[in-house]
Amino acid sequence: MLRLVRLGIDTWREPVAYLNRRCTACAAESFLGPRKVEVSGGGRSVVCALNVVDDAALVAPDALALSAHAFDLLGIAEGATVSIRRAPEPASRPALRARIAGRRLSDAEIDALVEDMAAGRYAGRETAGFLVAAARTLDDDEVIAFARARAERSARVDWPRDIVVDKHSMGGIPGTRVTMVVVPIVVAHGLTIPKAASRAITSPAGTADAMEVLARVDLDADEVRRVVEEVGGCIVWNGKLSHSPIDDVMNAVTRPLGIVSDRLSVSSILSKKAALGVTHIVFDIPVGPTAKVASEAEAAELARLFEITAEGLGIGVRCEITDGTQPIGRGVGPALEARDVMKVLAGDADAPADLRDKALMLAARVLALGGVADPRERAETLLRNGAAADAMDRLVDVQGRNPAPPGPGRLTREIVADRSGTVAAIDCYRVSGIARRAGAPSEKSAGIDLFKQRGDAVEAGEPLYRIHAAEQADLAEAAGYAERGSGFEIAAS
Amino acid sequence: MLRLVRLGIDTWREPVAYLNRRCTACAAESFLGPRKVEVSGGGRSVVCALNVVDDAALVAPDALALSAHAFDLLGIAEGATVSIRRAPEPASRPALRARIAGRRLSDAEIDALVEDMAAGRYAGRETAGFLVAAARTLDDDEVIAFARARAERSARVDWPRDIVVDKHSMGGIPGTRVTMVVVPIVVAHGLTIPKAASRAITSPAGTADAMEVLARVDLDADEVRRVVEEVGGCIVWNGKLSHSPIDDVMNAVTRPLGIVSDRLSVSSILSKKAALGVTHIVFDIPVGPTAKVASEAEAAELARLFEITAEGLGIGVRCEITDGTQPIGRGVGPALEARDVMKVLAGDADAPADLRDKALMLAARVLALGGVADPRERAETLLRNGAAADAMDRLVDVQGRNPAPPGPGRLTREIVADRSGTVAAIDCYRVSGIARRAGAPSEKSAGIDLFKQRGDAVEAGEPLYRIHAAEQADLAEAAGYAERGSGFEIAAS
Repeated sequence: MLRLVRLGIDTWREPVAYLNRRCTACAAESFLGPRKVEVSGGGRSVVCALNVVDDAALVAPDALALSAHAFDLLGIAEGATVSIRRAPEPASRPALRARIAGRRLSDAEIDALVEDMAAGRYAGRETAGFLVAAARTLDDDEVIAFARARAERSARVDWPRDIVVDKHSMGGIPGTRVTMVVVPIVVAHGLTIPKAASRAITSPAGTADAMEVLARVDLDADEVRRVVEEVGGCIVWNGKLSHSPIDDVMNAVTRPLGIVSDRLSVSSILSKKAALGVTHIVFDIPVGPTAKVASEAEAAELARLFEITAEGLGIGVRCEITDGTQPIGRGVGPALEARDVMKVLAGDADAPADLRDKALMLAARVLALGGVADPRERAETLLRNGAAADAMDRLVDVQGRNPAPPGPGRLTREIVADRSGTVAAIDCYRVSGIARRAGAPSEKSAGIDLFKQRGDAVEAGEPLYRIHAAEQADLAEAAGYAERGSGFEIAAS
Repeated sequence: MLRLVRLGIDTWREPVAYLNRRCTACAAESFLGPRKVEVSGGGRSVVCALNVVDDAALVAPDALALSAHAFDLLGIAEGATVSIRRAPEPASRPALRARIAGRRLSDAEIDALVEDMAAGRYAGRETAGFLVAAARTLDDDEVIAFARARAERSARVDWPRDIVVDKHSMGGIPGTRVTMVVVPIVVAHGLTIPKAASRAITSPAGTADAMEVLARVDLDADEVRRVVEEVGGCIVWNGKLSHSPIDDVMNAVTRPLGIVSDRLSVSSILSKKAALGVTHIVFDIPVGPTAKVASEAEAAELARLFEITAEGLGIGVRCEITDGTQPIGRGVGPALEARDVMKVLAGDADAPADLRDKALMLAARVLALGGVADPRERAETLLRNGAAADAMDRLVDVQGRNPAPPGPGRLTREIVADRSGTVAAIDCYRVSGIARRAGAPSEKSAGIDLFKQRGDAVEAGEPLYRIHAAEQADLAEAAGYAERGSGFEIAAS
């Protein structure tokens, strides 16, 4: 039994406990080693690495000190009585080792493994070993079990509705802000669609970034519940929702190791949908040489995996494999993309037709899943008669309207064709790179306004797109980068 | 520039640096995070995790404190001027990530990866990710490159000889002490054979444990050099030889994760042989249901891998796939195995014939690789005329004779057949388990003396083997375990 003390050492995310070498309650050195210790008190406990201290001024022999982070995790007061023991071995370790050796696991084994992982009972090397093995060899049943185990450990949101729909795009295509058109159409029809969207990680804007131009998006679960009850839907950032401790544990491995796996992605995406109470979902899988999914075969396998996993979780599903060979809409970057969306909703003659068409198609698929008989016609009507625009207006109001939504950045530079011909291809990576150098997504007004699509004729010297920025330095960097490679391939026609 | 201070905190093997949050030389918090820092001074440097401290009494704002282990690693005096920066990314990280994603690596990439791994530049999760991927998918060329990169980073022993031979068994068969017969025969012939053998990890005795009954085996590289120069060979423990820092790095991952991989084993074994200057080697691969290699197909693949990797390293090689269906020799446990060996060398009429035969066969293969024309005849002659026994006598003397070699433990219990019939099978795992419960290998006199082999007729009540122990409690535990399952399967004849 030891006296709890908080030690003012910031150990980042690693909880650390400190004992004096001449500890009065235990042989401090016997706890040294690769295995962690569990510190318990007041009905709570925290798993820590152990350090042994020689100086009694630092840690007294009758005290147990915790690093700042460990102290916060334990959450009891200084001076409380605590005890220490070796952290128990994770019960699922034999399953983890078996999976690394290649044996497939039962649902119960996967559930226990996810429990131990989420509780922080595994060292990074063990999580890494499992995920590298899992990334390439989880079979279909294991993907379902993994998704279910993760969903059960995420904060859940339940709705008093039989049908809750959603739409999810695999992304990678600059400008594709279809979600901001689909959700208002679906809301206008009267179906429930609580859309939790991501911010950009490597792209110039995620749906949450573009929506944030118009309204507050960092809502917590209670706020989302209120908005959806009132309006029937929302478009919010997913960062405060369905977060599960296992996300942090997995990200700490998959990011530095660069693990990209359909099996892990599908189980992650669907676990979050299940936790958010979604009953029916449409997946949009764009295919193109610079999209996230590069080939039809890959897209078909991903669709198959979404379908069997969603069905395994009791979620109705439809996958659409779509054209991902070029940007959709004209704007790339938060404010420019929001502008395109509002033009489509307003029925503006000048609205990007490709964005409108793709949004209508996906909205119709969502309505069809929700049991609507003439879904395409219904979607077109709701867009044409202004019901979708009204729905967006209510969404923005209830989420929290941005009183001064930024427009496209006032500093501009046009990038022109260096030859005449026809636009043969557009490199989405390059376009994204230019928009990011201009300042997107953190600078909402920054980005690109595209003037040409694939198949369009261009004259040498004719503008291909206009870069928008808020700062001269950003504009110069983006323009310089664009001049070294515009991202447009022009073939002699 | 900061003043170096030693902080009396024992952080086990994790080097840690501490800065005050109001550090006068840098923004301490900017170094917080998963990436490590490099602390440099006096031409030396150490890579550490960083902690930030609030209390100036602990770390002054103009000081940089190191944990006890980190301070030792840096190896310069307190008060010296040191600097801190983010540790550089390991240059081989793109290769590591590519390998995890499934791309095969070039020789140069593998060399750089092993260099960074050995230098401790990777986190455990990264090493784990690589090894899990490598365990199952390294191709032949990569295994060769991996073995070469590891050999080049091991302490090397070179011999003024054109031919240096060796013999290596994959093990798993209780009692198989052929090495202690093969080495004396080869030494008696005049070839050089610096045999570095392992101690038991999960078995009742390794060659080093049995040899230690007769002589000192924990020799360092200089002592081995002297013994081999004088006698022409040695039988020593491998623990003080060819150790490379990458062994520790790899073991910290492969052991907790239970990674068993022919590809990793072959590259590890051959890297150590290459570092020990071996030019020709015979591999013994016993096959049996309870041996390490369970099937002929597995054995053939392992032999192929040994052959191409040895050839890739310029080592002449021969693999023998042998019978691993039952123990070889009669004794199991250090002293009992040493007794069998000495009987074979003495030409005792009572010596185990199976041990003698297998040793002669393998000695002949080694002599053949070393260029001897009639190798089998030569091996038999050297055994029969006492030259091998004399060679063993010299080996024992020069390594350091045990003045009082232990014999079989004086406490005994016989385990008898519970029915009449024929011995149909012997479970090597069970036999090993009984011998270990009797006290082997740490108690050298403990073990089992086998009276029956597969195919032998037995009467109900006839002894199958005798357990030897030094302590009553060990004897009782081993006997109780044997009575619950003798390890012998007896079929009605």
